Amino acid sequence: MNRPIGIFDSGVGGLTVASAIKTVLPHESFIYYGDTRHAPYGDKSKNTIAQYSLRITSFLEQQNCKAIVIACNSASAAAYGQLKKFYPQLFILNVIDPIVERVAARNFSKVGVIATRATTKSKVYAKKLHRLQPNLEVALKATPLLAPLVEEGFAQTEISRGLIQRYLNDPALENLDALILGCTHYPLLQAEIADYYQNKVEIINSSTWVAQALKEALAKRKLLNTQTKPSYRFYVSEKTAAFADVSKLFFGAKIKLTEQVLST
Amino acid sequence: MNRPIGIFDSGVGGLTVASAIKTVLPHESFIYYGDTRHAPYGDKSKNTIAQYSLRITSFLEQQNCKAIVIACNSASAAAYGQLKKFYPQLFILNVIDPIVERVAARNFSKVGVIATRATTKSKVYAKKLHRLQPNLEVALKATPLLAPLVEEGFAQTEISRGLIQRYLNDPALENLDALILGCTHYPLLQAEIADYYQNKVEIINSSTWVAQALKEALAKRKLLNTQTKPSYRFYVSEKTAAFADVSKLFFGAKIKLTEQVLST
Repeated sequence: MNRPIGIFDSGVGGLTVASAIKTVLPHESFIYYGDTRHAPYGDKSKNTIAQYSLRITSFLEQQNCKAIVIACNSASAAAYGQLKKFYPQLFILNVIDPIVERVAARNFSKVGVIATRATTKSKVYAKKLHRLQPNLEVALKATPLLAPLVEEGFAQTEISRGLIQRYLNDPALENLDALILGCTHYPLLQAEIADYYQNKVEIINSSTWVAQALKEALAKRKLLNTQTKPSYRFYVSEKTAAFADVSKLFFGAKIKLTEQVLST
Repeated sequence: MNRPIGIFDSGVGGLTVASAIKTVLPHESFIYYGDTRHAPYGDKSKNTIAQYSLRITSFLEQQNCKAIVIACNSASAAAYGQLKKFYPQLFILNVIDPIVERVAARNFSKVGVIATRATTKSKVYAKKLHRLQPNLEVALKATPLLAPLVEEGFAQTEISRGLIQRYLNDPALENLDALILGCTHYPLLQAEIADYYQNKVEIINSSTWVAQALKEALAKRKLLNTQTKPSYRFYVSEKTAAFADVSKLFFGAKIKLTEQVLST
């Protein structure tokens, strides 16, 4: 199965997922699409995000991808159902379900979820967690500035520490057992968030779990690639200086970007 | 001349200009368009910003506007020339020229300009200032997080103070006589920026100057409205919670938003 995996996000955040996939599935090739022209998705409506996601999935399908990873929580919340309906033949994985399954299997009383406005508004984490664990208390908190802050390279500064403090110091988030990082940008803030809680709250970073879930799903479908040397391609809907600068931080290696505008 | 003035921006920032126009021209009606669906413009390419600006100007022209104010520095830098070419019959004012004229008339040795990435990259302030004052030293600095910070309500917090400190503490910005706020969001940070410089650097806020320039231009063209009670209409390409929350802060009064998607 020499076909690539398709991965998409509104921008750079999904590169944390791509990086985990590269580690967990070292023989797989992938095509990454960052919709920088329309980033960030986090403050957009469900319909708008679904439109963009359909267009990108169509592009990735034309590239002969064997599976699609929605490496963006906002798009996972807004578009997963529609994508599955429009592309029933494609295996599509979102970043939310693998987290929900693993969290629900634990013995937590209360978990928090920090995410963009779109993801928070969808209540997707609360709904899915309650389906598996009706008694689990779930506190949702929108933290819309964290993703742009990370994209601009201000992770691990007094600015990110101050903003984390402001957002997390909220009575709704008291007495947590765990905090889900509900945005693929947030792994870059994981150490600071753990520090804020003095390591007394478990911080749940989706990237590795999503890569693991992808591996299991590909194996089950006999779609794993074990023979070839993998290749990685990176497309953006608009080349921006910000993306070029920060992508190394997210992916862990320098990447070559190709601009590819998708028409409606 | 009972026709309204058209004002547009990528989001809420232009409301600081709208507010100044309301004060300086109390008899004028206006129609405001905030392109929240595509906000922020600051990291987008020149072509993309020009496309959006043309679409919005077409909408405002259909609403019978007698003048268009581009209340956004990124769009003023990227689209002013094209808008003038496509709409030669319309009076179009950008937010940059009134500032450049007034700054060039002063006796400054060095001025700084803080702005989005798109405005900084265009070098529009340096080019226009040098045309009038070839010996003036102009330092351009991109401060891309300040606009989202203000939109999220973090002006006048330790977060905005920390970020201002990080951005302005740059050798390129030493020994300034004045600092131009090259983004219509920044007036909400004016007091903190003045504090950073201990009031030793003149902070140049465009909103009032643009309103004044508009008044003079309308008077010259005999387009001033002196008789009717003004009306204000506010459109956005996508209704977002953020816009509704923060618009009062920018405009100084609560406003009613209408969603109006523009087709290509």
